[in-house]
Amino acid sequence: MKDRNIRIGIVGFGIIGTGVVKMLLDKVGMLADRTGYRFELARVADIDTMRDRGVRLGPSVLTRNMNVILEDSSIDIAVELMGGIHPAKEFLVQAMERGKSVVTANKALLAGHGAELFRTAERKGVHIGFEASVGGGIPIINAITSGLVANRFLSISAIINGTSNYILSRMTQGGGEFADVLAEAKAHGYAEADPSFDVDGIDAAHKLVILLVLAYRGAVSMDDIHVEGIRGITQLDISFADELGYVIKHLAIAKSEGRDVSARVHPAMVAKGTIISMINDVYNGIHVVGDAVGSQLFVGKGAGMMPTASAVMSDIVAMAKKISEKGVSQPKHNIFTDKKALKIIPIGRITTRYYLRFTVLDRPGVLARIARVLGAHDISIESVIQKARSAEEFVPIVVMTHAAAEASLVRALKIIDRLEVVKEKTQFIRIEEEVL
Amino acid sequence: MKDRNIRIGIVGFGIIGTGVVKMLLDKVGMLADRTGYRFELARVADIDTMRDRGVRLGPSVLTRNMNVILEDSSIDIAVELMGGIHPAKEFLVQAMERGKSVVTANKALLAGHGAELFRTAERKGVHIGFEASVGGGIPIINAITSGLVANRFLSISAIINGTSNYILSRMTQGGGEFADVLAEAKAHGYAEADPSFDVDGIDAAHKLVILLVLAYRGAVSMDDIHVEGIRGITQLDISFADELGYVIKHLAIAKSEGRDVSARVHPAMVAKGTIISMINDVYNGIHVVGDAVGSQLFVGKGAGMMPTASAVMSDIVAMAKKISEKGVSQPKHNIFTDKKALKIIPIGRITTRYYLRFTVLDRPGVLARIARVLGAHDISIESVIQKARSAEEFVPIVVMTHAAAEASLVRALKIIDRLEVVKEKTQFIRIEEEVL
Repeated sequence: MKDRNIRIGIVGFGIIGTGVVKMLLDKVGMLADRTGYRFELARVADIDTMRDRGVRLGPSVLTRNMNVILEDSSIDIAVELMGGIHPAKEFLVQAMERGKSVVTANKALLAGHGAELFRTAERKGVHIGFEASVGGGIPIINAITSGLVANRFLSISAIINGTSNYILSRMTQGGGEFADVLAEAKAHGYAEADPSFDVDGIDAAHKLVILLVLAYRGAVSMDDIHVEGIRGITQLDISFADELGYVIKHLAIAKSEGRDVSARVHPAMVAKGTIISMINDVYNGIHVVGDAVGSQLFVGKGAGMMPTASAVMSDIVAMAKKISEKGVSQPKHNIFTDKKALKIIPIGRITTRYYLRFTVLDRPGVLARIARVLGAHDISIESVIQKARSAEEFVPIVVMTHAAAEASLVRALKIIDRLEVVKEKTQFIRIEEEVL
Repeated sequence: MKDRNIRIGIVGFGIIGTGVVKMLLDKVGMLADRTGYRFELARVADIDTMRDRGVRLGPSVLTRNMNVILEDSSIDIAVELMGGIHPAKEFLVQAMERGKSVVTANKALLAGHGAELFRTAERKGVHIGFEASVGGGIPIINAITSGLVANRFLSISAIINGTSNYILSRMTQGGGEFADVLAEAKAHGYAEADPSFDVDGIDAAHKLVILLVLAYRGAVSMDDIHVEGIRGITQLDISFADELGYVIKHLAIAKSEGRDVSARVHPAMVAKGTIISMINDVYNGIHVVGDAVGSQLFVGKGAGMMPTASAVMSDIVAMAKKISEKGVSQPKHNIFTDKKALKIIPIGRITTRYYLRFTVLDRPGVLARIARVLGAHDISIESVIQKARSAEEFVPIVVMTHAAAEASLVRALKIIDRLEVVKEKTQFIRIEEEVL
């Protein structure tokens, strides 16, 4: 059978765009063999048409004007890889309005405007592929929506920001304090010039919104998610964690809590000897617990040119198949919806174990005072590390608690942090046990 | 939009069949919400209609006669969960001949007769789902065929037999020699009464054939695959491995070797500290290296009622979608083909590092004689463990080699094993470094 031609237009010729262009040029034969489609790179649009990306495009392919893609009715699939909200959103909406299926890796856009994009797709009978938006090359979107479709999701706990994981891994391997390792990560290209999206947890929260929508099928907004980054993690915490048998990871967590869901992004301690504790550097690890399938873990490179391009390509192939089926009446299921909001419980209502690090004057009776406040708030102590350091005026006292309600803990710490013997805001890190 | 009804017939009401029946009965509403299809359990056929499986079926559902499913033209999808070659194959072929799409978890059947089944499917324009055939609930079939479709596969190294992994894990945790742990595994239901398929590597080889076909797109026969089981692994090997920094796992391995592929199933040493070394008990772990995506690892329960049923259900949903598209002209790509044979290199042509355990008389000069034979065959020694054990007549000498050609090694061991100071056939275990 003759291969069917599928014409691709790409906007955004940055790192990921270059990877996709490379694959489309290098792998046209392999993809035709495997899929029966011959993918043609019709157009690539970018404001920078001069920079050498190490790939050779025909003179008519590269353009500064993304409207060229929108207006070319021979283009079947429009791929958005420019990032940001505007004009990425307008490009995708207009491409769909003109009957094109689209592919995007834009997690910020999906997290903020997913419902609107999917409404347009549904109205126009086109499709949106977004496998590359979470977990780089890991086919996690497809796993949750297809492979695990018959599961109720009990929890998802995931390392889904490569920059944060790289920094925490290096800090754990003795690479220094946060600021030093961040500088090193920038030098290696593992962190952006402005790293806030990554190290403050925003990027992970965007991805968590997408996972929540897919797993729990309801509307979620970024405002629903409690987000903490990794700037507050110190070598002192990392070495106490080690002493206690834990490793600090930056996790995005979603959990079924009765009919509701908790959703949060923050540093967490995971036990040494778990697989999650060993996922280091730029690797991502997504742990999913389904009611039928039990624990599953997906590990792979969460970012980078070729891993992410691999996911974009899988979407392009999937869109090609969907395009072939165009016009067939089939049940639709709009993934991002704003019809039913997912009920996400506030962070104060979660219950978990905590690591607490108090910075106190090295005087008798201090631990007793702290313990009294914790006890009065129903927080029971599992273990304590207190080391006299005679040379220093302030010493750390570390307390591991049994499971406690976060709201109670926050109230207790407010009181403790006002004690005159307490010299710094108390550090607290949640312990995550729902890991593999 | 009204949900479309999809009628399911299942043959084989054993463990997996019961899991699928449970999910179809319990989750009809959730699945309709998520997919737009209302799945109806039309018929379940099994020779045993009396046993209580803890699920309630209407009186007209259960039958002893699988022809009832074949002859019911209202049944859209026929699910084969009886296992074995006959009559599973005839059932699937006849179901497809009658225009039904089919789902099977039968790896032995696919490994031996996949091409024939897929020819029938292509001729009749129907589809075959087989996600449950490898890795239990892990969506690895879909990952390789869709998520990673744009990758050339450099290697696959996988723990894909839960029974073998359970036994080796227990042995490593100090549970005793193979025979004892096998008896314990049988008592716990982790090994069959006749465990040969699992502990001799046949089941893993069936699954490797399927992975090879998907990843390398050529015909593969069981005869192409070098298969070793775990019966020969002893506590002595496990403790030497531990001393050397390794764990013994039973792996199925496929590797690109230029234009050809190597394919083998055998015990292998993997370094401690790797994730693969930590995948224990009934968990499976499938490590895939793609040219674009790099290393990816999928971990989950590789067997059991509900994990496997979860995979079968994902196929049922996928088949429902394909059925909706029926009649649309679209490129076909026949996954199992017998048109082009995959060229698999013989085991003698692989090159890897080896652990060798010689059982020798405790006399001066023995190691020198062994080393001389190895050297004469271009096998260079990386390290040696030799411990004098005065009380025993025979002592082990352990040699770790640098990378060596397997054919040379086999020739060298043949000579060494004929030396009068060597008292047992030399144990050799390959070292696998292509792991995460």
